[in-house]
Amino acid sequence: MASTTGETLAAAEPIADGRTEEGEEEQVVNPWEVSAKGGKIDYDKLVDKFGCQRLDESLIQRFERITGRRAHVFLRRGLFFAHRDLSDILDAYERGEKFYLYTGRGPSSESLHLGHLVPFMFTKYLQDVFKVPLVIQLTDDEKCMWKGLSVEESERLARENAKDIIACGFDIERTFIFADFSYMSPPIYKNIVRIANCVTGNKIVGIFGLTLEDYGGKFFFPYIQAAPSFPSSFPHIFSGKYSKLRCLIPCAIDQDPYFRMTRDVAPRLSYHKPALIESKFFPALQGESGKMSASDPNSAIYVTDSLKDIKNKVNRYAFSGGQDTIEKQRKFGANLEVDVPVKYLNFFLDDDAELLSIKEKYGSGAMLTGEVKARLIEVLSEIVERHQRARAAVTEEMVDAFMAVRPLPRMFG
Amino acid sequence: MASTTGETLAAAEPIADGRTEEGEEEQVVNPWEVSAKGGKIDYDKLVDKFGCQRLDESLIQRFERITGRRAHVFLRRGLFFAHRDLSDILDAYERGEKFYLYTGRGPSSESLHLGHLVPFMFTKYLQDVFKVPLVIQLTDDEKCMWKGLSVEESERLARENAKDIIACGFDIERTFIFADFSYMSPPIYKNIVRIANCVTGNKIVGIFGLTLEDYGGKFFFPYIQAAPSFPSSFPHIFSGKYSKLRCLIPCAIDQDPYFRMTRDVAPRLSYHKPALIESKFFPALQGESGKMSASDPNSAIYVTDSLKDIKNKVNRYAFSGGQDTIEKQRKFGANLEVDVPVKYLNFFLDDDAELLSIKEKYGSGAMLTGEVKARLIEVLSEIVERHQRARAAVTEEMVDAFMAVRPLPRMFG
Repeated sequence: MASTTGETLAAAEPIADGRTEEGEEEQVVNPWEVSAKGGKIDYDKLVDKFGCQRLDESLIQRFERITGRRAHVFLRRGLFFAHRDLSDILDAYERGEKFYLYTGRGPSSESLHLGHLVPFMFTKYLQDVFKVPLVIQLTDDEKCMWKGLSVEESERLARENAKDIIACGFDIERTFIFADFSYMSPPIYKNIVRIANCVTGNKIVGIFGLTLEDYGGKFFFPYIQAAPSFPSSFPHIFSGKYSKLRCLIPCAIDQDPYFRMTRDVAPRLSYHKPALIESKFFPALQGESGKMSASDPNSAIYVTDSLKDIKNKVNRYAFSGGQDTIEKQRKFGANLEVDVPVKYLNFFLDDDAELLSIKEKYGSGAMLTGEVKARLIEVLSEIVERHQRARAAVTEEMVDAFMAVRPLPRMFG
Repeated sequence: MASTTGETLAAAEPIADGRTEEGEEEQVVNPWEVSAKGGKIDYDKLVDKFGCQRLDESLIQRFERITGRRAHVFLRRGLFFAHRDLSDILDAYERGEKFYLYTGRGPSSESLHLGHLVPFMFTKYLQDVFKVPLVIQLTDDEKCMWKGLSVEESERLARENAKDIIACGFDIERTFIFADFSYMSPPIYKNIVRIANCVTGNKIVGIFGLTLEDYGGKFFFPYIQAAPSFPSSFPHIFSGKYSKLRCLIPCAIDQDPYFRMTRDVAPRLSYHKPALIESKFFPALQGESGKMSASDPNSAIYVTDSLKDIKNKVNRYAFSGGQDTIEKQRKFGANLEVDVPVKYLNFFLDDDAELLSIKEKYGSGAMLTGEVKARLIEVLSEIVERHQRARAAVTEEMVDAFMAVRPLPRMFG
């Protein structure tokens, strides 16, 4: 996976792709570039352009009814907002059919921010709810192809990232984590070639915006990210009756192009089209037009941040929709639309009643920015502390165990 | 490997690449197309265009002096006629340094003709002379990408072809045969990505004449054929002090583009540039402007042909440079330049004195076409019979043994 949630919300350069006759705002969203004029992605336009479906209230209700579980905060507050064929997965689940989950990460940096964890936190929830197996692809090869990292450095980062992923609490009896360099083997390679035989160079160039100036691996990588959508890429897990299992992919919407391509190919190879559940990008502390960037540590909360860092970053950098002075705030209240602390609480404060109360009080002026930030600091500190404790407990042996090529005999147990 | 010796000597379509101002004959030689206006390849022009070196008499003499062995008939009669850095290999060998051999085949058909065996017969000779290890790549993945064969059919053909290759007499203690689909694994994949990171899409398109209409695997395959030129693709064979071993590649000259690319990349990855020893294409029975083609069984002698088939094909289809009538033949003699039986004897009759005598007598009219053909039938029958006996003795277990991923502890013994 190339970028992950919220990594590349950059200020836009004008790009023809998004231009309309009316001169509307332009935006580009693909696995390597997420940009919009003014910095704010128009997700409605994106859904229409990509041709995926909105994840509406009725589907969320159906999800809750079928699973008997409260929808995850990321789902009911709209962070995961789009899908492809999620209803088919729910239909199948209702009929007692099985499926598996597939997600991934491009291990381009050692330290992850909260946006990087979003797909994994959500995927862990889905695994718990559905009791299904999960494959997690670490695309170290992609980072070697795109970022010029050495094979060895890419592999090292993949292993470091695996520790953070494991710390999200995945069930080792249902989870296989693999890195492309170390997993590359006949079953997945055969699927890669089968997929490559269905997609021309033109199509790759069109979908991914490559040019012939690019190094050759880039033309091939899309097939490598596509292949785990087909269960036969993992014969140690999905053999016999599971060899045509359905697949559900939670990911940020910038990954949609890979799976649009995969869905085109699937029927030709006699597989189900993979279903998708897709998230927005996680906003930077500076707001949705800011960029969460590894080169600016103050743009995001990192999972390695100390409590002091968190407090400092939220207080100093989190863009506030509150008024300049206490007096004005009491009088006019905050603009919740642009307030980053409220956006963050929206995604991380599970308690609906408390969130509603904060929004009401803050919006009306009964609450001050400092008070909202203080609550956010508490919430984030708890998440980061929990992650750090869990990450510290992840041993090299656990990484080996999650990444071992092995059957998962109790994957549906 | 895409085409093998002599498979694709087609009548040419005009292609800009080979055009000159003077309107000379055009020719195209790349791994997927070998064609020339009038059908006859101008090898001198090809050597100049590719930038490889002619394998001249003094280099052959040096080869004989250093190895203490008579040059193979394919070498001294000019079938292997060009090279890259062969003198470096001889220098290294003289200094007591080691190297390994690498050759391959694209398993596109079940039944091989004699032209297909040429690189293997010659490689076996080199292995015997130098006592060095050899890796043989069966590019079943390529045939799947190019010919639309299924993965399973490509794998089956690779295994069938492996039997014919083993029948050429390779030493199992020095030989590793692998098919891409079943060998694909982290060590070779890492080298593939390292190579891909050095070669742009433009370069691939330029070298191999691809267009974006082609399916995506074709853009990637060149790296897969390049990777075995680097010893670290085979850590079970070449570890430790052998991890930077020199490589010598015997192949038909249509494979040169792959290894030109590989040689460009090698220094950037701290490897020796692979050396090459390159052959012409084996002529069709109908002559050098004919096409040895799987779709025309009468264009070539197949290793599965019966003695009756051989006799019939040579007598009926081998293009003769002899005169129409006995009287005219006695008077004018044969045109040896176009005579296919003489060309075949040139490559398969080891006895220099006998060959010279045949050429003299046939050229002067003392010998008749029928007599020359009868001698050729004897020579070919002996080769084919020997091959068939050897092939019949190749068991599935032997194929497994040659293809087992294993160390070769006595590879230089």
